[in-house]
Amino acid sequence: MDYTLLLNIAMILFSTKLLGLIFQRFNMPQVVGALLAGLVLGPAMLNVLQEDEFISMISELGVIVLMFSAGLETDIKEFKKTGLASLVIAVLGVLVPLLGGFCLTYFMNPVAENDDSMAMLKSMFVGVILTATSVSITVETLKEMGKLNSKAGNAILGAAIIDDVLGIVALTIISSFAVEDVDMVMVMLKIVGFFAFAIVVGFLCFKLFSFYMNHYKKDYRRFVMWAFTFCLIMAWISEILFSVADITGAYIAGLIMSSTNRKEYLAVRFNTLSYMLLSPIFFASIGLKVVLPKMSAGIIIFSVLLTVIAILTKMAGCGVGAKLCRFSNRECLQIGAGMISRGEVALIVADKGAQMGLMDSEIFAPVVIVVIVTTIIAPVILKVVFSERKKAVSQ
Amino acid sequence: MDYTLLLNIAMILFSTKLLGLIFQRFNMPQVVGALLAGLVLGPAMLNVLQEDEFISMISELGVIVLMFSAGLETDIKEFKKTGLASLVIAVLGVLVPLLGGFCLTYFMNPVAENDDSMAMLKSMFVGVILTATSVSITVETLKEMGKLNSKAGNAILGAAIIDDVLGIVALTIISSFAVEDVDMVMVMLKIVGFFAFAIVVGFLCFKLFSFYMNHYKKDYRRFVMWAFTFCLIMAWISEILFSVADITGAYIAGLIMSSTNRKEYLAVRFNTLSYMLLSPIFFASIGLKVVLPKMSAGIIIFSVLLTVIAILTKMAGCGVGAKLCRFSNRECLQIGAGMISRGEVALIVADKGAQMGLMDSEIFAPVVIVVIVTTIIAPVILKVVFSERKKAVSQ
Repeated sequence: MDYTLLLNIAMILFSTKLLGLIFQRFNMPQVVGALLAGLVLGPAMLNVLQEDEFISMISELGVIVLMFSAGLETDIKEFKKTGLASLVIAVLGVLVPLLGGFCLTYFMNPVAENDDSMAMLKSMFVGVILTATSVSITVETLKEMGKLNSKAGNAILGAAIIDDVLGIVALTIISSFAVEDVDMVMVMLKIVGFFAFAIVVGFLCFKLFSFYMNHYKKDYRRFVMWAFTFCLIMAWISEILFSVADITGAYIAGLIMSSTNRKEYLAVRFNTLSYMLLSPIFFASIGLKVVLPKMSAGIIIFSVLLTVIAILTKMAGCGVGAKLCRFSNRECLQIGAGMISRGEVALIVADKGAQMGLMDSEIFAPVVIVVIVTTIIAPVILKVVFSERKKAVSQ
Repeated sequence: MDYTLLLNIAMILFSTKLLGLIFQRFNMPQVVGALLAGLVLGPAMLNVLQEDEFISMISELGVIVLMFSAGLETDIKEFKKTGLASLVIAVLGVLVPLLGGFCLTYFMNPVAENDDSMAMLKSMFVGVILTATSVSITVETLKEMGKLNSKAGNAILGAAIIDDVLGIVALTIISSFAVEDVDMVMVMLKIVGFFAFAIVVGFLCFKLFSFYMNHYKKDYRRFVMWAFTFCLIMAWISEILFSVADITGAYIAGLIMSSTNRKEYLAVRFNTLSYMLLSPIFFASIGLKVVLPKMSAGIIIFSVLLTVIAILTKMAGCGVGAKLCRFSNRECLQIGAGMISRGEVALIVADKGAQMGLMDSEIFAPVVIVVIVTTIIAPVILKVVFSERKKAVSQ
């Protein structure tokens, strides 16, 4: 038993909350503070804390519980209403950044690739990286502001799920150019299978839970435990059986539980579990991952441009998508802002690209910078575009 | 990232709660079910789950939070009142099992040791193993029954802390016979230092927290986070600086926080964190540790006798101690029962003995059996000696 663990957790809990409160004082979301806490403690600055197995596992559990809670707090009727809009937003939110990333990389050619078809493929891959959306930061920010269950909030959540699926499709298509044994049909079948599974199992489990819970007059801890088990199993099945992100499964599990009559009871407990231990470690771990390599001047310029492109194309794509679906200008801005954050998803995609030879090592630093900047800036922009009157939530 | 983790956690949460509810139906504590869940899933039976790094770390965190909660729910005035009694109970609760374990082993001589002085030393070591007390199971059982803050409950908690310290002293003394470089003076100084530290820091932190919390009219999440940080740091300092068990530090931290005016607010949150994730994993992990080796007939008989001696001597020692301090007969029984469980503490001591050559490998199986039986039987006996009228607590 390594007791340093206790000290590490103490450091994370203390610093994320302290920086969170400081940022709140300056009218910014607390989650920005939590992200910076990881950045400060980690290899990027003080280097007193490194991400280890334990932290990364707790983080995974943390993001699963966060997305389950988001599902719990979603109004499923609202969610269904925004379904088509979410699809349009997601599709444009994938296409515009894909195009933007491709054009920038192809015309700047930062790694001086001579082979033109390879240059096109590699540039396209940078585009694919930019399509990723990491919704967890947005969820936390909106929760903090009490805006998660707004019309724009629902559209963002729906679009993020579809974005995840489109991301898999885009990655599969580009992989099929580089690697021989990618089976497009299989991937498509899995995705269709996942949605069929989610609908059928979702309906059955909803009926089962409703029947079970209606049996009792009082609230019991067992409801929480069965719901948690359900959440974990859905996350696991999504990832292992259907190759869809585990957090998508967790979100759907939350969505299913949100229709039961114990929604409030569950939400309070999962929120407590989340803010006391899992979320602080998850948000700090994002900062802990950051290691900045040395970069040439050309790569620095490329990084800056790529970051700008990443933010603008996502906002433009999603915003225009929302506008087409008759959202108000303000809501278009909110939705665009909610999809900016790339988070760990972009890093995972980049990693797969490197394995397939579609990512040069020089491109890693720009991608890391895009992830850091979009992740930290997203909650700040969200705060600006969502804030009207102040709504105090006890933190 | 190994996604099997999600499935493993789901299995633990589901099985501990399910078996817990089944045991509750038969009027037994839920924690017995949780312990058996680990036994069933683990290497002892189905072998679908093994204890890994993650589970053992979460377990450590779980027992720390459990003891912190116990501290939070302790009535510090009651606790001070039972101080002297706890000392008497702990001393007799160490001496009687020490003698019992020594006599049984020396006269049965199960490993046929020829060297008489070595036989005495080894027998004494078995006695030292029997002095250990693992209070976590008792805490959980009493919590379930709403009896943690009874007079007997306070006496048990106090005695368990002193028992921990006496255990260190006993281990140090016997080690000094076997190993050259054991510094008795240093160990004593550390123990005195620990109590001085606990009193001084305890008082200062109590003042600091009280001042800080009185500043706010409402309850805030930050109270929970600062309290958690404090708990973890106290646990770490106890273990690393003073070689006292981390859970003792956590308990003292809880005791300090129990005097602030946010005791209830904190208790609810820590209980939620505990029952949703940490405790189930902790209790299951105890069962997961169980691996029964092959045993000869002589060792089996020795195991049975050692288990009986372990239960009777602890109950007798603590019971007589309580009687000397004018507890009622019923309370004596309750206190004796509350100290039976040996839990992981005995295994840790046994492990140290093996490193020093004071434990033959044949003795490991009997020790494991003592731990399993005392741990599973303790909550059952507690339920019997504590139950009068039923008190329903929502689980």
